Amino acid sequence: MRCEILNIGEELLNGTSVNTNATWLCGRFAHLGARIVAVTMVGDGLNDILAAFHAAAQRADFVVVTGGLGPTSDDRTKEATLRYFGGSLVPVESEIERIRRLFADRGLPLTERNIEQGYVPDTCTPITNPVGTAPGMEFKSEGRIWLFLPGVPAEMKALVDQNIHRWFTDAESGKTFVADEIMVIGVGESFVADRIAPWQAQLPAHLALAYLPSAGLVRIRLSCFSEDAGHDRLLIRSELQKVLAIFPGEAFYTAMEEWNHHFYRVLHQQNISLSVAESCTGGYLAHRITSVPGSSSIFRGGVVAYHNDIKTELLGVPATTLERHGAVSRETVEQMAFAVRSRFRTHMGVAISGVAGPDGGTPEKPVGTVWIAVADNLGVEKAMFLMGTDRIRNIEKSAVMAMKMVLNRLATAR
Amino acid sequence: MRCEILNIGEELLNGTSVNTNATWLCGRFAHLGARIVAVTMVGDGLNDILAAFHAAAQRADFVVVTGGLGPTSDDRTKEATLRYFGGSLVPVESEIERIRRLFADRGLPLTERNIEQGYVPDTCTPITNPVGTAPGMEFKSEGRIWLFLPGVPAEMKALVDQNIHRWFTDAESGKTFVADEIMVIGVGESFVADRIAPWQAQLPAHLALAYLPSAGLVRIRLSCFSEDAGHDRLLIRSELQKVLAIFPGEAFYTAMEEWNHHFYRVLHQQNISLSVAESCTGGYLAHRITSVPGSSSIFRGGVVAYHNDIKTELLGVPATTLERHGAVSRETVEQMAFAVRSRFRTHMGVAISGVAGPDGGTPEKPVGTVWIAVADNLGVEKAMFLMGTDRIRNIEKSAVMAMKMVLNRLATAR
Repeated sequence: MRCEILNIGEELLNGTSVNTNATWLCGRFAHLGARIVAVTMVGDGLNDILAAFHAAAQRADFVVVTGGLGPTSDDRTKEATLRYFGGSLVPVESEIERIRRLFADRGLPLTERNIEQGYVPDTCTPITNPVGTAPGMEFKSEGRIWLFLPGVPAEMKALVDQNIHRWFTDAESGKTFVADEIMVIGVGESFVADRIAPWQAQLPAHLALAYLPSAGLVRIRLSCFSEDAGHDRLLIRSELQKVLAIFPGEAFYTAMEEWNHHFYRVLHQQNISLSVAESCTGGYLAHRITSVPGSSSIFRGGVVAYHNDIKTELLGVPATTLERHGAVSRETVEQMAFAVRSRFRTHMGVAISGVAGPDGGTPEKPVGTVWIAVADNLGVEKAMFLMGTDRIRNIEKSAVMAMKMVLNRLATAR
Repeated sequence: MRCEILNIGEELLNGTSVNTNATWLCGRFAHLGARIVAVTMVGDGLNDILAAFHAAAQRADFVVVTGGLGPTSDDRTKEATLRYFGGSLVPVESEIERIRRLFADRGLPLTERNIEQGYVPDTCTPITNPVGTAPGMEFKSEGRIWLFLPGVPAEMKALVDQNIHRWFTDAESGKTFVADEIMVIGVGESFVADRIAPWQAQLPAHLALAYLPSAGLVRIRLSCFSEDAGHDRLLIRSELQKVLAIFPGEAFYTAMEEWNHHFYRVLHQQNISLSVAESCTGGYLAHRITSVPGSSSIFRGGVVAYHNDIKTELLGVPATTLERHGAVSRETVEQMAFAVRSRFRTHMGVAISGVAGPDGGTPEKPVGTVWIAVADNLGVEKAMFLMGTDRIRNIEKSAVMAMKMVLNRLATAR
C-alpha cells in the first residue's frame, strides 16, 4: 500500500511548531506495513490544497489528510474536497446531535458555525470524532482511499485508533498484520547494517525488514500480512532471537514499546527503585524517566550536580577526587553513583559526567567524552564513551546509554 | 518570495525521526520574510524525487532541498539533479582537495566514493560545506533558485548560515530585511489574538505581522523589506513597545533569541545564579536551562524530589507540611524553593510541584494543577496554574511558566 500524509495548516510552515502529527501517522501506518511515499505540508490556501491533492493522487493509493476542518474562515479543507470530489454539503443528523450534546455538556453556547461542522459532502462517508466536534471524512475515488482527519492531535489520534484496523483490512483483503521488533542501543547505524547483513540474507522472503534509527538507538522490525498469524508470529520471534544473539548486551526485545516505556516496565516488573546524579545531562535523564506515566513507582528522584561544589556538598564526592581526576572521570562518577544510591535509598544509583560541548573540551578529554556509572548492592559498573560535538545529541545519547547500562546490570549482575 | 522545503530520505517516512530540518529551515526562511508554501518529504526513489521537483516548480520560486548527497547507493539526489537540470558530473578541484584534507585530519582512509562527493553537475554552482564532505549545489533554472544541501543537520545549518543573506539579497533586489519580535508567555493563542486586534488594525501597512505559537508561548514578529533600514528598525521597535504594554508581566522583548537563550542571557548579564527543586517536571526545567551552552555560569544544579521522602530529607520540607497541605500546595513549593536556594547557595531558588497526569488527580487538585515558587533574598513569589490533561504538555508549560516567574522577579523585586 502506497500511502501519503498531507498536513494542512499555515502554522506548520512558520518554523515554530514541529509537525508531530506527521511523525505519529508515519509511525502508525509504517507499523502496519504501509509504505509511506511522501509527507507534504501546505498552508490554508485553496489552490495550494488542491495542488497537493493532485500531487498525492499521482503517487499514493491511500492518502491521509489532517487539518483545516475547524469552524473558522481559514479552514478550507472541506471546500477543497467539494471541488476535488464533487458533491454538495448535507447535514449529518447524528453528527449534529453529537455536537449539540458536546456543547451542552461543556456548558458552552452553540453557534451556527459549530452546527455547520456536522455538514459533510454527500460524496463521503463521515467518521465520528470520539473527542471533538469535527467529524472525519472518508472518500473512495478512482481506486484510491482518502481520509480527512482533524488537525488537533488528540482528535486525530483517537479517530485513527478507532478505525485503522478496518482501513487496513479493507486494503489487504482480510489478512492479519503481524509485526515485532528489537532495539539495538549505542551501536552506529552503519555498524548495525554490516553486522546483520548475513542474517538479513537468509530471512524468509515474505517477512519485511524495517530499520528505524534515532538518537542512540536503532529499531529492527519484522512484519508481514499473514494468512497464519500464529505461525508467522513465532517465526518473527525466532528470527529476532537471532539478531539479539548478534548484539549481546546491546540489543533488547521491547515488545514494540518505546524505549522509555520499556525501561519503565522492566524496572517496574522487577520492583527496582532508581535515583540519578547528573552533571552534563543536566536533568535530561530524569526527564526521560519521568516522562512515562506512573514512573514514581520506580524513580525516587535525583540531583543535578552541575557545579562541582554540589558534587561535593550534596553527594560527598571528595574535593581531592575532583582535583586529582577531574569531574569527568571514572572516580567521580563512581562516587556520585554510590552517593545518590545511598542518599535516596534506592536499589540502583546512576551517575553521568561528561563534556557536552560545544566548549569545555581539552586534549585529554575532548568534547563528547562522557563517563557513566551504575551502582547497586553488588558494586558498580562504569564505562567511558566518546560521542560527537553536538551538545543536544550528546545529552540524548548519554541518557540512552545510561538506561542501557541499568538494564544490562539488572540482567547480569543480580 | 514563495519558498518550498523538500526533504529527501527514507528515514523521514518511517515514523521514528521527527523532521527537525524542516522546522529549522521554515523558521530561518520565514524569519527573513519568505512565504513557505509547502514542505515535502519523500524517500530515496529516483522517480519520487523527480516528481517532487516537478511539484515544487509548480508552486515555488525558491526551492530548498536537503538530503541524499551522501556517498552510499541510496543517495540519489545528485543523479536526480542531472536528470532534471541536465549537464554531467565534473570534478571540483577545490572541493576534492578539501575532502582530502578532512580525511587526512581525521586519520581516515580516503576511498573513491569519498572523492566522488567532490564531483557536481556542471550546470550548478557548488557551495562549500564548512563542516562535512558533501558540498551544496545551487541551480538557477527558469527564474527559479534551487539549493541542494546535505541532510546532516549540523552541515545543513552551517551551509545555510554562511549563505542565506546572499540568497535573500539576490532575490529581493538589494532591500534590507528588518525584523524584530517579542514573546508572550502563558497566555492562550486566541486570547493573545483578541487583545492585539486593535493594535493590529493600526499597524503601518508595509509591516508584516507573524504570530508564532508553541507550548506555553506565542511569538509576535514584525518584519519588512526596507529601503530605509534605520527608520524601519525604530518603527518596529516602537510598535513592539505597544504590544509589551498590552501584556504587562506576560510579554518579553527577546531580541529574536529562543526563549531558553533569552532566559540564559538575562541571568548571565545580571550575574544571577539559580537552583531548582522539581517534582512533577522531573528534571525538565533543569534540562531546558542546561540545554544552552555556557549555562554553568548561571546554574549550580537542582534536586528532582519526585518522592515525598526526598522533599523532606534533601530539602527539609517538614513531614507535617506535606501531610497537612499535600505535596502540591503553596506551602510545599515555598519551602522547597527556600531550601534549594539555601542548600545550593544561589541567588534564586525555583520550585515546581503539580499533578502532571494522566493519573493522580483529585476533585480538589485535578490533573493539571501546578504550584510554582521563586525565592530570593527578599522573599518568595508563588502562583498556582490549572493546565490541561496532557502529561508532556503540562511538563513543558510548567517549565516555561517557572522561567517567566524568574524573569519577572528579576525585573520587579530587585
